[in-house]
Amino acid sequence: MPIGEFDLIRRFFSEPSTQNAGIVLGIGDDCALVSCPTGMELAVTVDTLVSGVHFLPDVDPERLGHKALAVNLSDLAAMGAKPVWCTLALTLPEIDEGWLAAFSRGFFALANRFGLSLVGGDTTRGPLAITIQAVGLVSAGQALRRSGARPNDLIYVSGPLGSAGLGLKMQQGRTAATDPLVIDALDCPEPRVALGKRLLGLASACIDISDGLAADLEHLLVASQVGATLETERIPMIESVRHYIRDTKDSDLPLTAGDDYELCFTVPADRQPRVDFLLDELGLPGKCIGVIEKKLGLRIYRNGHPIILSTPGYDHFAQP
Amino acid sequence: MPIGEFDLIRRFFSEPSTQNAGIVLGIGDDCALVSCPTGMELAVTVDTLVSGVHFLPDVDPERLGHKALAVNLSDLAAMGAKPVWCTLALTLPEIDEGWLAAFSRGFFALANRFGLSLVGGDTTRGPLAITIQAVGLVSAGQALRRSGARPNDLIYVSGPLGSAGLGLKMQQGRTAATDPLVIDALDCPEPRVALGKRLLGLASACIDISDGLAADLEHLLVASQVGATLETERIPMIESVRHYIRDTKDSDLPLTAGDDYELCFTVPADRQPRVDFLLDELGLPGKCIGVIEKKLGLRIYRNGHPIILSTPGYDHFAQP
Repeated sequence: MPIGEFDLIRRFFSEPSTQNAGIVLGIGDDCALVSCPTGMELAVTVDTLVSGVHFLPDVDPERLGHKALAVNLSDLAAMGAKPVWCTLALTLPEIDEGWLAAFSRGFFALANRFGLSLVGGDTTRGPLAITIQAVGLVSAGQALRRSGARPNDLIYVSGPLGSAGLGLKMQQGRTAATDPLVIDALDCPEPRVALGKRLLGLASACIDISDGLAADLEHLLVASQVGATLETERIPMIESVRHYIRDTKDSDLPLTAGDDYELCFTVPADRQPRVDFLLDELGLPGKCIGVIEKKLGLRIYRNGHPIILSTPGYDHFAQP
Repeated sequence: MPIGEFDLIRRFFSEPSTQNAGIVLGIGDDCALVSCPTGMELAVTVDTLVSGVHFLPDVDPERLGHKALAVNLSDLAAMGAKPVWCTLALTLPEIDEGWLAAFSRGFFALANRFGLSLVGGDTTRGPLAITIQAVGLVSAGQALRRSGARPNDLIYVSGPLGSAGLGLKMQQGRTAATDPLVIDALDCPEPRVALGKRLLGLASACIDISDGLAADLEHLLVASQVGATLETERIPMIESVRHYIRDTKDSDLPLTAGDDYELCFTVPADRQPRVDFLLDELGLPGKCIGVIEKKLGLRIYRNGHPIILSTPGYDHFAQP
């Protein structure tokens, strides 16, 4: 039986959230009220996931609740911000209480893990889509930006690339690969929040890899007005992605596939030991994959030979 | 010709916005960075408009850009907050540059009028929908809430009701009315931001009328744990709404129709002269329409007789 909008918000989205000290007034009025500690800045990001574009309509709603929030937390991680609150705008074709309960479970499991409060929301009827706006705190003037990379800085990625891309191919039946890990990578990305915070004062620039390493690194290079050289054999990959590349020769996958949500960051070379120690401490298989150069543009080498990618990164509207 | 997502954001949404002092970093990184002045709180609201649900697919995009933002500014007004920044998530079935230019024009005309900065956005491909999250500033502890109404407080509305409701009927061909003013009321609501700010320290409670006076006043009564008596003949209405009611006997329209975006607020009775002076100063035809009572529930009188409304307020999912 359909239930009304107001009950809906109350039933599934008003309770289990962590309450931060800064939340003065949560869900239930025309606005939420939040405070910001002195000396801190707010990092603000927004992302929409649309059914049929970003996920299949029959996706597990619990995983969708996780992912819709994870992609936003990944943006906060890329600035080194600590997640504090978010809003959720949910457009639903109909009320399916089982679906909503599962979505809410996935959403709050991740939110509570990072101490994030849901402070406001809007539920509307229409084609299934989720827009989350997440806000994090970072000490004033300390946030990681895309624009701080300097020549001779080392380029790192925080973990294996291409997993989510292979997961998408598997989901679409476009590969013989059968690794459940790559489906997990696609559906349940883990935002690198702890790493982002620890990179404050250590990294010179940072971006999260949502559109593919090449495309996102390009954004960082343009913002920093520098260039770079990458060596593809240094990019961390999981076993099934290595096998896929060996079998198909599709070596571009870890450079062009999106949705991995690892961080790509740069550090002055003399900080390499500290970064390697940090990655080890956090249990992340991150690696140095290249170097920033004064000469503009991105140069990619595979076994000592320059290569040109067959496709750029993900872009909703440029795709056929 | 289709253009890419990144160009799209840059071309239509990165420039004309007002820059507030508190915007440390605007569009172009993983997050925007904003600061919050000491002693202030942030009022946060989010609203989604979906094509075919909240507006017709062929609506004038300039008016849609206005309305999508106006409904959020109305929530800020209801808390007495000064608009400062917002994010925009735009889901579009295709790139139509003329449409985007017009939408952007309507959006920024309103944003700039209130000194609001667009600090972040996401454009995705899918069924047309717009989610805006807007943030305003209000002195800590001073925000207007729904919960502050006390017995004997007077109930005010800030302007005429039922105009947008009649506009919707006109747009749907369900009335012989032909007043362009009611279409303007529906498409281009004016958020009562100046009034909201001036009600700080004056009103005891406030809500914006988005779902209809009766439904929204009920929210205020429940939050304040009080009841109220309304006299419908005191509700301000424009001429064509009066004519419509006279011709159709549909007297409930100004009580049940949504989308008017006037404020409904309560004030202690001894402040009536100050409120009437303020409304006059702002050129608003607001009126006192009833009184808060200790006895729970909403009692509505028409010419001295109690009435029962035929329909409650607007609720996406409870509708047939």
